[in-house]
Amino acid sequence: MSERHQEFLSLLKSNGEAVETVLATLLSADVQPGEIARPARLLAAMRHGVLNGGKRLRPFLVIEAAALFDGVERETAVRIGAALECIHCYSLVHDDLPAMDDDDLRRGQPTVHIAFDEAAAILAGDSLLTLAFDIVASPETRLPDATKTALVLALSRAAGIGGMAGGQALDLDAEKTAPDEAGIVTLQAMKTGALLRFACEAGAIIADASPADRATLRRYGETVGLAFQIADDLLDLTADAATLGKATGKDAERGKATLVARRGQAWAEDRLQALVKEAEALLAPFSHRAGILVETAHFIANRRN
Amino acid sequence: MSERHQEFLSLLKSNGEAVETVLATLLSADVQPGEIARPARLLAAMRHGVLNGGKRLRPFLVIEAAALFDGVERETAVRIGAALECIHCYSLVHDDLPAMDDDDLRRGQPTVHIAFDEAAAILAGDSLLTLAFDIVASPETRLPDATKTALVLALSRAAGIGGMAGGQALDLDAEKTAPDEAGIVTLQAMKTGALLRFACEAGAIIADASPADRATLRRYGETVGLAFQIADDLLDLTADAATLGKATGKDAERGKATLVARRGQAWAEDRLQALVKEAEALLAPFSHRAGILVETAHFIANRRN
Repeated sequence: MSERHQEFLSLLKSNGEAVETVLATLLSADVQPGEIARPARLLAAMRHGVLNGGKRLRPFLVIEAAALFDGVERETAVRIGAALECIHCYSLVHDDLPAMDDDDLRRGQPTVHIAFDEAAAILAGDSLLTLAFDIVASPETRLPDATKTALVLALSRAAGIGGMAGGQALDLDAEKTAPDEAGIVTLQAMKTGALLRFACEAGAIIADASPADRATLRRYGETVGLAFQIADDLLDLTADAATLGKATGKDAERGKATLVARRGQAWAEDRLQALVKEAEALLAPFSHRAGILVETAHFIANRRN
Repeated sequence: MSERHQEFLSLLKSNGEAVETVLATLLSADVQPGEIARPARLLAAMRHGVLNGGKRLRPFLVIEAAALFDGVERETAVRIGAALECIHCYSLVHDDLPAMDDDDLRRGQPTVHIAFDEAAAILAGDSLLTLAFDIVASPETRLPDATKTALVLALSRAAGIGGMAGGQALDLDAEKTAPDEAGIVTLQAMKTGALLRFACEAGAIIADASPADRATLRRYGETVGLAFQIADDLLDLTADAATLGKATGKDAERGKATLVARRGQAWAEDRLQALVKEAEALLAPFSHRAGILVETAHFIANRRN
């Protein structure tokens, strides 16, 4: 294992722990100014949906993208990462519902609607989505108001109809009417790409970076977003091929033809390597500071779970 | 009909139309900067949930509370009203779901999950909730960034676990375990009171009003919120008593003992008049400017639908 990969793993762990500490505090029973009460069962459902051992990859990207620049307090980046994680986790809670992907288990634990009930899962998701914007705006997040406004706008557009939520809608439609390749690309850019892109762009927003640097981080985010999806589809294809002894996995069963399923494993592996190179080239202007984000692109492209 | 009541009705109509014009534009097919695409079916579900002939009472309160002060552009107050209406409508779309209140009709039209499907209703609600924060932060909403941050914070706390969403969770619990009177008061303050309170406070926030004036508007909002709920419970009791020939209505059937059902119609009518007087007293410092909000308190207390 290279030194840089060890450093990456160590940062993934320490950043993840910092984000979880903030999330646990935000999801404590303490009623905040402007709130009336925090119903215990709903709070427990929110905690179940968030404090579940995720890798915290999106917050990691926020924190490490911000670390490319001078003058950003790590604690601030951690809080914006925690806000983004609330959005990611709300989407998982809602996607798992019977009316959506109908999943009973996530990370080996019962999903929120199984551990609680459907109504609690809907409301926990709604409350996590709302909490994300609360975190960005709250006085404890020490950023200029103009930066908070920019974050709220970019996050809402990445998460709403024009981003993640719209992508989930397209994904459900895709089970009925198979999209063409352009349609698959759009669907994936929205469903998983938009939040990964936001994560990287958010680092630049927090740092009040130049428009050029913000655009670069945005493109880096798009690039690792594409790699993330291809790696995901490849895992779906190959993990099932190995364990179930057939060529296509869960996606194909659901009638979702991924790009990887259409074009094959060799294409996917080539494409992943090309995307990692692209990410590396994008980060070149940040020279030695960018080592961790380069390593992150490798990690995303080569992940095995 | 008094002249002031006619003016109130005329403003309710014109403000409502202004809000709907903005909402229709916001929910057009035009992809906004930062968005990737707007899936047509999800957009249609969102429009179904919002452009449904509501009274737009919450936006009305934002606009008229802001109008107490000098220097607020009406168009800005209309946009903040539209953001709040997105939150209100998302909550109706989700509350109507089978796992929640399971309602097939709203305003005589099929609810979103009936007209589309459950997944579309969940995602339309999520996207409307997200859009609310988008509207507050967007450049078209011409307010200082500090004002936008204050609005995002107050709105998220009014709508999240400590406000509306938490209130809906308590309301569902109340079908299993009847709350005591203090519990009912908290539940109602959260479920319906929090957004009405925010509406009035938002007018003061937009106007950059003094802390004292902001606190007054907040208390006015709490007061009309209480009146709104009592009027609602009274309607449930008396409308069903008239039409179904029995003493209690839908709430009692669901095992929800409202304060009105416990204490009776005479108590409710007295309480409503006391709340209107309280609202009027709170507004006294705004003298002649407050006529419309005084009339609004009367309207809320005496509404028959």
